[in-house]
Amino acid sequence: MTQVFRAWSPRHNRELETEHVCASRSAVEEACVRATQAAPAYARTGHARRAEFLARIAEELGRDAAAILECAGAETGLMPARLEGELARTRNQLLFLGGVVREGQHVDARIDGADPERKPLPRPDVRSLLMPIGPVAVFGASNFPLAFSTAGGDTASALAVGCPVVVKAHPLHPGTSLLAAAAIERARAHCGMPDGVFGHLLSGGERAQAVGIELVQDPRIEAVAFTGSLRGGLALQQAISARARPIPLFGELGALNPVFMLGGALQERATALAAQLFASLHGSAGQLCTRPGLVFLADYGSAREAVQSFCATLVQHAQAAATQPMLSPQHREQLRAQWSQRSRLPGVRVLREESGATHEIGPVLESCSLATLLEQPALLEECFGPGTLLVHCSSETELLRAAVSCPGSLTATVQRAPADEALARTLLATLLPRAGRLIVDGVPTGVEVNSSMQHGGPFPASTRADSTSVGGRAIQRWLRPVCFQNFPGEWLPEELQDANPLSLRRTVNGKPG
Amino acid sequence: MTQVFRAWSPRHNRELETEHVCASRSAVEEACVRATQAAPAYARTGHARRAEFLARIAEELGRDAAAILECAGAETGLMPARLEGELARTRNQLLFLGGVVREGQHVDARIDGADPERKPLPRPDVRSLLMPIGPVAVFGASNFPLAFSTAGGDTASALAVGCPVVVKAHPLHPGTSLLAAAAIERARAHCGMPDGVFGHLLSGGERAQAVGIELVQDPRIEAVAFTGSLRGGLALQQAISARARPIPLFGELGALNPVFMLGGALQERATALAAQLFASLHGSAGQLCTRPGLVFLADYGSAREAVQSFCATLVQHAQAAATQPMLSPQHREQLRAQWSQRSRLPGVRVLREESGATHEIGPVLESCSLATLLEQPALLEECFGPGTLLVHCSSETELLRAAVSCPGSLTATVQRAPADEALARTLLATLLPRAGRLIVDGVPTGVEVNSSMQHGGPFPASTRADSTSVGGRAIQRWLRPVCFQNFPGEWLPEELQDANPLSLRRTVNGKPG
Repeated sequence: MTQVFRAWSPRHNRELETEHVCASRSAVEEACVRATQAAPAYARTGHARRAEFLARIAEELGRDAAAILECAGAETGLMPARLEGELARTRNQLLFLGGVVREGQHVDARIDGADPERKPLPRPDVRSLLMPIGPVAVFGASNFPLAFSTAGGDTASALAVGCPVVVKAHPLHPGTSLLAAAAIERARAHCGMPDGVFGHLLSGGERAQAVGIELVQDPRIEAVAFTGSLRGGLALQQAISARARPIPLFGELGALNPVFMLGGALQERATALAAQLFASLHGSAGQLCTRPGLVFLADYGSAREAVQSFCATLVQHAQAAATQPMLSPQHREQLRAQWSQRSRLPGVRVLREESGATHEIGPVLESCSLATLLEQPALLEECFGPGTLLVHCSSETELLRAAVSCPGSLTATVQRAPADEALARTLLATLLPRAGRLIVDGVPTGVEVNSSMQHGGPFPASTRADSTSVGGRAIQRWLRPVCFQNFPGEWLPEELQDANPLSLRRTVNGKPG
Repeated sequence: MTQVFRAWSPRHNRELETEHVCASRSAVEEACVRATQAAPAYARTGHARRAEFLARIAEELGRDAAAILECAGAETGLMPARLEGELARTRNQLLFLGGVVREGQHVDARIDGADPERKPLPRPDVRSLLMPIGPVAVFGASNFPLAFSTAGGDTASALAVGCPVVVKAHPLHPGTSLLAAAAIERARAHCGMPDGVFGHLLSGGERAQAVGIELVQDPRIEAVAFTGSLRGGLALQQAISARARPIPLFGELGALNPVFMLGGALQERATALAAQLFASLHGSAGQLCTRPGLVFLADYGSAREAVQSFCATLVQHAQAAATQPMLSPQHREQLRAQWSQRSRLPGVRVLREESGATHEIGPVLESCSLATLLEQPALLEECFGPGTLLVHCSSETELLRAAVSCPGSLTATVQRAPADEALARTLLATLLPRAGRLIVDGVPTGVEVNSSMQHGGPFPASTRADSTSVGGRAIQRWLRPVCFQNFPGEWLPEELQDANPLSLRRTVNGKPG
């Protein structure tokens, strides 16, 4: 029996009219079969041709921009400016990742020559490069209908290196996903890429979870990319662990993103710090994995007054802020339940309460002492919405204890002034093993897409702290080294041939060649 | 209560006299605590200093060569020439991996500059590099008392990049392991490396498994390297999965290493092929993870006579070969049980039988048709000893079907002559997704230690097909990217400072800098 579902309108707090059809079990399998059939031919397409394919996807997304933005707005309730920025970013990611692979430099070509005279045995010719792993499953994320969904960074990075992709679209934005999938399909046809390099599965309601499990348990899938909740990620890991042949899960599961406000900084710019932090925690209704969820305040010595002023300013911003719709009633109700539960914990003070009066949500500010934080594990759980927990630390020692107590996170931030230098450096060194990205005098939101960016961190931020889902290194998740021993020259991949037809910088006998 | 154990003398088929003391639970914990305490300081030691440390370990191993070789011979029963080669290789690995990190190029330094004028938001300065992940647990392998044990490639690659190591020595060569550990400790002291960067745990008997589990479940351990059986690797994975915080297992679990003997090659050089293959499967009593365990013969057309001659020559070699001791009675009895079970399967023919008369073992050759192989899953299980299964294929189609049926493997080999070109290339393309290393006209044993080598393959060869335990890329298992945003220049790691004090080739704004 065909199962159907509808997306949700966050702005109107009701279902949207369009009915979408859930992928059947056989549709999941067919997408994986087609991806597998396409894999060898797609792996052999040249790097420059795949870069063109990605650029064409960006172009097709641009062509449909108006429809995509309208649909994404209706399905997510996110503000137009935010969605415009996200579409631009999505297109930039495709162009950027195409640029990363265009010249083929990413294959890390290595050549070690033969030595027939070596004793006791001749040394064979050995060459290796990184090659695509095969079909990849990508899960669309609820909070980024474009940049982390159907045509988002996971899809782009896998397609860039030559891996077919099967996307499970997020149930909360099926219409947006269909438009993005259509853009990819037009680009595929235009660029003559093999049929099946891109598959797209819609699902909602009860069928959504089943489609996800069928996809990751399909024997043809070689790796999985997921951006979502810790609970969702662990459930997916469990489904993957049940496979006969294990495959990697690249799960980006959110984070607390601790921010340390040091005394000198607070005294120098409490008002500006409050404004900057509030914008970071409130934008997109706080539905960002880099939202600052934990703020440690140097509430001692000469900074105590500045801390008061900082908190007061933050509360003023919160009171003046507009309410915002959340992605779904489930997101909203879970968040309200978490906040309400936390507010009843001994030692937690609510500085700014959420009215709970409408279907839209306002920012929440809570505070406590470090001792309270360390006594209540519930306070170290992520609250996915526009709020944060201010933790008052009564000494440098407490700030350092706070840093040691932080669970693995995508980011860790220190706001400092010249007077804070020694403490700031000690804190950053302490935070280093606990985060993927360290920030000085900034906020964790706003993830640049460039060669250097790291968007991943020690568990529970990611299932694989050695990987990133954003930036130039994102492609490395979809590659594995393959070694060729004693191959006739013309049988080798172009990247490893003596004549070096792609003009790559290679490692030859262990040295830059 | 202190538990003790003794190593086994394969040559004399009895326990050795020396009594060794098992690490207690608190000793396991202490080693992990010390490694964790050493980690930050060790991560900050310069690349060149760590290269010197590794070179010094090689020197200390050389100083103790006579004692090490004597002890390894007594504990493993491996031939002196093999052990001399292995010690040389172990020392070379240390020197090679030191060379890989000496200049710091492996940190993949990336810089993306700020742009204060960018709209709508200024672009922050973002830089990143690969940093050591922290304490690593290494499991010594039974079959390589030196090169894959206490001072082997896993230890060397982790120490090279700045990760402390805690080794669980293999119960079958504790004396050898102690000598290697002492060499590392002398080098550590000589080079002034932090106390605790190297820990060493002995265990045997019932305590061996418990020590392994305690080690991988210690919350301070960040990754595990294991070379051993599929069963052992899966048990370890289960212990790791029970941790609150997941960590990667880099397990190299052995392989069948299929070899395809094509018609032209057989007709051209059946005798030489048989000699070469026999040496490969028989050396070190076949106790190598790259031993060719499955040989597909092009037994059709004009090659049929050559196949007969090939098989007859192989049998002659087997009959003439000396028996060899195996690493342990458990290895021997398990192997004999597997061979005996296989020989009773319908369709399996024993070309050369093992007498079973002494504690030493002779080579075994079995043969079957492709149909038999595909009907009997037991024939696709690794037999860890001096034997192989010859599979007669009656057509090109059968050879290709054979290639498709091969499970993930460390290597796949094609022996061909000019007449075989088209078939050879199709076979290699079919084998590509199923192996880490493809070999033409050679044998899979003999793993070169160089920049290009890949020693890892799709499951069940490895738990992580994207990693290698040998060669230049082996270091990448112990690194993760860390990103620095808006850092004052002097707070950055040297590798990322504007002045580029280490003179690294870096990626700047996405381009080679």
